[in-house]
Amino acid sequence: MLGIWLESGRIEVRRKLQLPERRAGEALVRVLRAGICNTDLELVKGYYPYRGVLGHEFVGVVEEGPAGLVGERVVGDINAACGDCTTCRSGRATHCPTRTVLGIVGRDGAFAEYLVLPEENLHRVPKEIDTDVATFVEPLAAALAIQQQVTIRPGDKVLLLGDGKLGQLIAQTLALTGCELLVVGRHPQKLALLSERGITTGTAEDVEAGAFDVAVECTGNAEGFALAHRSLRPRGTLVLKSTYAGKLALDASALVVDEIAVVGSRCGSFAPALRTLAAGRVEVEPLIQARFSLQDGLKAFAKARERHCLKVLLNIGEI
Amino acid sequence: MLGIWLESGRIEVRRKLQLPERRAGEALVRVLRAGICNTDLELVKGYYPYRGVLGHEFVGVVEEGPAGLVGERVVGDINAACGDCTTCRSGRATHCPTRTVLGIVGRDGAFAEYLVLPEENLHRVPKEIDTDVATFVEPLAAALAIQQQVTIRPGDKVLLLGDGKLGQLIAQTLALTGCELLVVGRHPQKLALLSERGITTGTAEDVEAGAFDVAVECTGNAEGFALAHRSLRPRGTLVLKSTYAGKLALDASALVVDEIAVVGSRCGSFAPALRTLAAGRVEVEPLIQARFSLQDGLKAFAKARERHCLKVLLNIGEI
Repeated sequence: MLGIWLESGRIEVRRKLQLPERRAGEALVRVLRAGICNTDLELVKGYYPYRGVLGHEFVGVVEEGPAGLVGERVVGDINAACGDCTTCRSGRATHCPTRTVLGIVGRDGAFAEYLVLPEENLHRVPKEIDTDVATFVEPLAAALAIQQQVTIRPGDKVLLLGDGKLGQLIAQTLALTGCELLVVGRHPQKLALLSERGITTGTAEDVEAGAFDVAVECTGNAEGFALAHRSLRPRGTLVLKSTYAGKLALDASALVVDEIAVVGSRCGSFAPALRTLAAGRVEVEPLIQARFSLQDGLKAFAKARERHCLKVLLNIGEI
Repeated sequence: MLGIWLESGRIEVRRKLQLPERRAGEALVRVLRAGICNTDLELVKGYYPYRGVLGHEFVGVVEEGPAGLVGERVVGDINAACGDCTTCRSGRATHCPTRTVLGIVGRDGAFAEYLVLPEENLHRVPKEIDTDVATFVEPLAAALAIQQQVTIRPGDKVLLLGDGKLGQLIAQTLALTGCELLVVGRHPQKLALLSERGITTGTAEDVEAGAFDVAVECTGNAEGFALAHRSLRPRGTLVLKSTYAGKLALDASALVVDEIAVVGSRCGSFAPALRTLAAGRVEVEPLIQARFSLQDGLKAFAKARERHCLKVLLNIGEI
């Protein structure tokens, strides 16, 4: 089959990849559409030593698997856990120490004609959700994970730093809480997408120090972290939604004196993301800025790397 | 009056200090007993540029103030807030940006014959609580602040790093939650005080990586922080209960991948601490290791600096 292969920091489109092997309890999924995420770009840069088919944001059709799912459009949780260790049995399967992660850790990903995932990872896509839109279920689940970890009250002042792919989704889901939201970014065109939805945007100069209840850091740079920290009131919460290259030098004493909580946040549950999309509460189409075929995978990556680019989709199959 | 004065990193016992000036809404308190805390030792080392009478853990008798309090034994919240700013009106008076802090920021402290505090900062000490014991209300409130910020469940595995003055109190209050507690320290005599109360103690080698729901860091050193982080399960909580000299280099990406919450924790409320002491749920007498008069203040500080020493009290007045 055709797929985008990463090895030693280089990606290439391979034409003769083996069909992924379907093990007990797993389903074979024919991929329809997939999205390129910053994590894919980071993997190519060497963030984590992965070798295999890239890609983890996808919509597909089940070809082989449980009778109830065959022929259905599905999206899939990217963490394939053992289901049996202490971590899994404590309800934290996304942290299973022996898990594989689709297109990220030990499991070929979605930028190919087929993938396999455990049956329990798959979620049927309701008919109200278009296939393009459904490729956003995974990042939208990650956005909603913030509210699973931190209480956002309608009266809270919330700062979001970052106007990129994930920032756009987080801005929309935070706005749903009724909080007083300010989104700070460096790209006027990206911020404009948010202002069009009635979301207040600005630059670093608009951030009042000590004024925010919650700050969500989604830039992945040390400046963003420092600004988020500075923006918080005492006993405020700083949500880290990006990974950082290298270590951050952190003033731990200031965290103690100001009693700040720093919360790392990663993956979320698919069910709330599907409900949110089905009800049309979040709009993702404006984020789609280019579409490529799988054959043109390298062009797709080049486009996704452009500074102003939001979501690039790969058209892989037809229903 | 007599008092222990800090100036330019030097402490001295001064005999002719002026009686502190009592402003509107403040009470004059004659000090009976006071405790030396690590913060006092850090202030002498220059942690914060304070000049004045040291001391913030105290029990006293109200000499001038509201009729209902005059003649009563009291303890006092150390943060004297404006009561009128956004922070105060949000219920976070202990973070009021213009606050003074008894013996720490802009307000003469408790290592003297008299002090003044706002009337609303004072709490009557119930007769069940002995004066020596009541000097522990302030640090015990700081220990209980952990449970005000973080939910500790009876089934949780909790690690406490540090067996010093504050660690001893935190160990006892954490144990009250019914959690599975391990206290790690470097001082066999201090750990023995906890084992005598049925609390499990150990060394760094006893800490299983990834096994704890909550880790409380109370050592104030970077090694302690690293061990606390390593001990946590995914989505675990790291409570920072110490200040740190300089910045900590922190692996922020690991916090995101493991979805760890880091919570800075400082002062707590006096009422729960008074209830806990009145009911005899925490035992503080074994922590008292020396007593000195105010005249012997320098000896008291020398004793408090000894590596194995827990609480040193100053006998300042009689009821």
